[in-house]
Amino acid sequence: MLPSVAGTASPRYNGPEEDHIMSDMRLIVAGAGGRMGRALTRAIAESKGAVLAGALEAPGSELLGKDAGVLAGLPANGIKVSADLWAMSKEADGILDFTVPAATIANVAIAAERGIVHVVGTTGLSSSDNAVIKSVTNRAVVVQSGNMSLGVNLLAAVVKRVAKALDETFDIEIVETHHRMKIDAPSGTALMLGQAAAAGRGISLDDHAARGRDGITGARRPGDIGFASLRGGTAAGDHSVSFLGPFERLTLSHQAEDRILFAHGALKAALWAHGKKPGHYSMADVLGLADI
Amino acid sequence: MLPSVAGTASPRYNGPEEDHIMSDMRLIVAGAGGRMGRALTRAIAESKGAVLAGALEAPGSELLGKDAGVLAGLPANGIKVSADLWAMSKEADGILDFTVPAATIANVAIAAERGIVHVVGTTGLSSSDNAVIKSVTNRAVVVQSGNMSLGVNLLAAVVKRVAKALDETFDIEIVETHHRMKIDAPSGTALMLGQAAAAGRGISLDDHAARGRDGITGARRPGDIGFASLRGGTAAGDHSVSFLGPFERLTLSHQAEDRILFAHGALKAALWAHGKKPGHYSMADVLGLADI
Amino acid sequence: MLPSVAGTASPRYNGPEEDHIMSDMRLIVAGAGGRMGRALTRAIAESKGAVLAGALEAPGSELLGKDAGVLAGLPANGIKVSADLWAMSKEADGILDFTVPAATIANVAIAAERGIVHVVGTTGLSSSDNAVIKSVTNRAVVVQSGNMSLGVNLLAAVVKRVAKALDETFDIEIVETHHRMKIDAPSGTALMLGQAAAAGRGISLDDHAARGRDGITGARRPGDIGFASLRGGTAAGDHSVSFLGPFERLTLSHQAEDRILFAHGALKAALWAHGKKPGHYSMADVLGLADI
Amino acid sequence: MLPSVAGTASPRYNGPEEDHIMSDMRLIVAGAGGRMGRALTRAIAESKGAVLAGALEAPGSELLGKDAGVLAGLPANGIKVSADLWAMSKEADGILDFTVPAATIANVAIAAERGIVHVVGTTGLSSSDNAVIKSVTNRAVVVQSGNMSLGVNLLAAVVKRVAKALDETFDIEIVETHHRMKIDAPSGTALMLGQAAAAGRGISLDDHAARGRDGITGARRPGDIGFASLRGGTAAGDHSVSFLGPFERLTLSHQAEDRILFAHGALKAALWAHGKKPGHYSMADVLGLADI
Repeated sequence: MLPSVAGTASPRYNGPEEDHIMSDMRLIVAGAGGRMGRALTRAIAESKGAVLAGALEAPGSELLGKDAGVLAGLPANGIKVSADLWAMSKEADGILDFTVPAATIANVAIAAERGIVHVVGTTGLSSSDNAVIKSVTNRAVVVQSGNMSLGVNLLAAVVKRVAKALDETFDIEIVETHHRMKIDAPSGTALMLGQAAAAGRGISLDDHAARGRDGITGARRPGDIGFASLRGGTAAGDHSVSFLGPFERLTLSHQAEDRILFAHGALKAALWAHGKKPGHYSMADVLGLADI
Repeated sequence: MLPSVAGTASPRYNGPEEDHIMSDMRLIVAGAGGRMGRALTRAIAESKGAVLAGALEAPGSELLGKDAGVLAGLPANGIKVSADLWAMSKEADGILDFTVPAATIANVAIAAERGIVHVVGTTGLSSSDNAVIKSVTNRAVVVQSGNMSLGVNLLAAVVKRVAKALDETFDIEIVETHHRMKIDAPSGTALMLGQAAAAGRGISLDDHAARGRDGITGARRPGDIGFASLRGGTAAGDHSVSFLGPFERLTLSHQAEDRILFAHGALKAALWAHGKKPGHYSMADVLGLADI
Repeated sequence: MLPSVAGTASPRYNGPEEDHIMSDMRLIVAGAGGRMGRALTRAIAESKGAVLAGALEAPGSELLGKDAGVLAGLPANGIKVSADLWAMSKEADGILDFTVPAATIANVAIAAERGIVHVVGTTGLSSSDNAVIKSVTNRAVVVQSGNMSLGVNLLAAVVKRVAKALDETFDIEIVETHHRMKIDAPSGTALMLGQAAAAGRGISLDDHAARGRDGITGARRPGDIGFASLRGGTAAGDHSVSFLGPFERLTLSHQAEDRILFAHGALKAALWAHGKKPGHYSMADVLGLADI
Repeated sequence: MLPSVAGTASPRYNGPEEDHIMSDMRLIVAGAGGRMGRALTRAIAESKGAVLAGALEAPGSELLGKDAGVLAGLPANGIKVSADLWAMSKEADGILDFTVPAATIANVAIAAERGIVHVVGTTGLSSSDNAVIKSVTNRAVVVQSGNMSLGVNLLAAVVKRVAKALDETFDIEIVETHHRMKIDAPSGTALMLGQAAAAGRGISLDDHAARGRDGITGARRPGDIGFASLRGGTAAGDHSVSFLGPFERLTLSHQAEDRILFAHGALKAALWAHGKKPGHYSMADVLGLADI
């Protein structure tokens, strides 16, 4: 599972004094008390090749000091929730971070300084947030994606190809469904799929996105990429991209059955990145989808 | 097919001198050059129990004088397109009207005066348009519906029942797909389904419709009924109503495969209404869905 | 949560010496080491109104003596897995039983003798198995259903109504998707939906089921109810009933997102049944769907 | 529209004496009285670049001598239905053939002898039938496909890629829906998609097809490709290929809204093939999907 060997450019494994090369990867879960944080803790507990090395929450959180296992609905594991990333990252190899932009940005510098893998699943990042993240990737390993599932990343690759093969007689429409608590629309993943479609077609999504259709809209503008968002229940995330042409439709869709899917993807990303050269990686890199 | 008998309140059949009681119903197609108009002409040509009696287009239309059969892609039938409803309705029993509000309102008075059945499938009518239509139904037979298909009307009945059986832990979302030329969103049928859901729940749709979701929306408001619209290709009309609850979803959906479906529904409505007492009827009346 | 009061016909609560009337319902999980058993243990742990009173496994199981909490991925709860239902049911109010026919039949007599509620979600029961279960319901409370979810039971009620409203020009097709480990097809729930459709139409399902369509089948036999089964991945269970008519389709579908759904349904059934008169109840009774 | 130029190996255009190079392609419709035959006649009537040159029916057909336009629901076009392909093909450039195996095989030799393009959409051909067709392609231009739509052929290309990218932890299931008159299952298109999936995975479909699932099937066999068929109403043809993995599903689907779709595809194939070198071509060739 650990591809790293002595002598590579890995920021972590740099000599024969490393005696835990074949050990499990030691991972910190950021936002350990949240929904994704708990799923990450469970995924690590069930995994081969990784162990929980720390559980991070914001300073002042009422969860500080609690057992991370119990918090995740598991037997106690002795890891206490803490707000001190610098301390806990001393004995860690990576951090899984599905939090909020401010927290992620605060974590970037520490992870880079410690030379640990930073897996970023946080969404809603601004352009300047993203610039901060990229600024460290000359010396740190960052894997960043709006969706860590194999299926969605494969879907994006396929959408790009189909969009390239079809002309404007096929209208592109993207619809997604998420649970009732989601606060933004369209989802980051829907936008990522829209970017893939736009790239396939050689157009700019910003110029062609049709969002929030309502009222007297007029006929559909040729070349537009439409977005629609459904919200309700506990849906972990459905995404569907349709190409609607004359008398036929092609629909490419993905359904996440459980949030644990994204936790597994993040874990896979961390294990893949362990020992890689510094850089800014995507899930397409992790999953080897470049040539799909 | 013709249930009317002498002595009823039918505006058309009022005595033994009526010698065509068992004859085919003579129907006028309004908007004969449009997409629905041509489908209506074809539906009448294939039907038992109805014959084409007139083809109406707006004054000034370049189609005036053309053969209505050829216009519909059929062999010539000798009926020339005309703008004079008063003249053509003298020898007619009904008019099928899927046009625009202004045209429909103009047709209402003439149809009522002539005592012929008026089947109204026109959408986008204002409250005052609807008031005009209703004003004649003390003396005229009008069948009006935003969707003339059996399936959609049955769907609406079922949606009402399910909405009544489920509480607010189930979120209601309505999504529809129509061809690229449609100019309004949500579709009239989607709104009709939303009304059915609201009625089942005992709430006002106006107060609970969530339309055009886009951007930072915040978490879903409990009790809302969401709408989303997809546009593309040649889709004749898909509608789907989902009830999204904790870990389960119930979805009730309808697909129209071909516009001819609505033409058949309009024809069925006309034949059903032929000889009925004056009144304002719905497709639920025509289809006998009151007790579903 | 506990509707039972002293003096009712409840087999459990029969006098003022009962001092835990308002206490939580004490439930045994049968097949505690299986997938549904663990989900039931978790559902009870998260519930209000119920506590785990016993964890049953087959004699000789390697799980005997293990902690039921840990088995379910929870903190230890001190309940040891045992094969002795007679002993553990002394201090219990009900048993949740999603096991195999032989085990369920063995549990029936003991539950009846103890006077505890028996919630039966086991599928694949033979006619004689069902006769055994019914034989005790003059003195015991049994709730039995092939699917414990609100959504599926509501779907069945709706399917029956729609099947009644539509004639044979609409073909009925049922398709279901389940995880790769499922060993039978169609699912019990699909057959239950087929029964609902047949009942609505006033026909016998046995005479009209079209299963395992493959090869040169000839044209569809009018009036048949078709079944198709998909298997793969981790799907908790999708069911869809379509009515395919001339140029339109009505599709009524349900998706279970997580097995916990059925555990919640079983728990609701137990709490509802607690204190009820002896009888054989369905989820339609529990959910009050009789008049949908 | 006509890419052919003087001096190519085209069996039709072989020198400067050809004075109708820029003329419309003259096409014969085989099975002119059938559902697909009439759709082909209509497609040609609406097309640019093609004209109807003949209407073929079996010897003894009661349609012989009728006007092919009227038969297709169009104005009369003066082409009388005939059983004599040899005669009518003298003044034709191609034949569109969606008939039955025996008829297609009879047409092969004549089309090859005349040097006209043969577009074969007939399904249910045996291996020896296919051998006969291939035997003429050293001297004749044949385009053959089980499905002439752009969308389905693109879907097949995409399915192959996705099947290659995913391993056996993703189960492949194919489901199709067709109208109530279809006599075989699975559809030829479903099998074509299964072949694409098998090719992507590098396995033989014959060894891994799971068809007609019914009864006690046991757990799903790893690596199988499942097929299921729904029949009902007027559905022109839906196909869906799902990849069901751990906690996620990817579904790639196509819907034909109208049979005219296949007629347009056949017409496109004929126009593309007009002037090509002898050979056995697929819709992937026509559509340029080789590099998708």
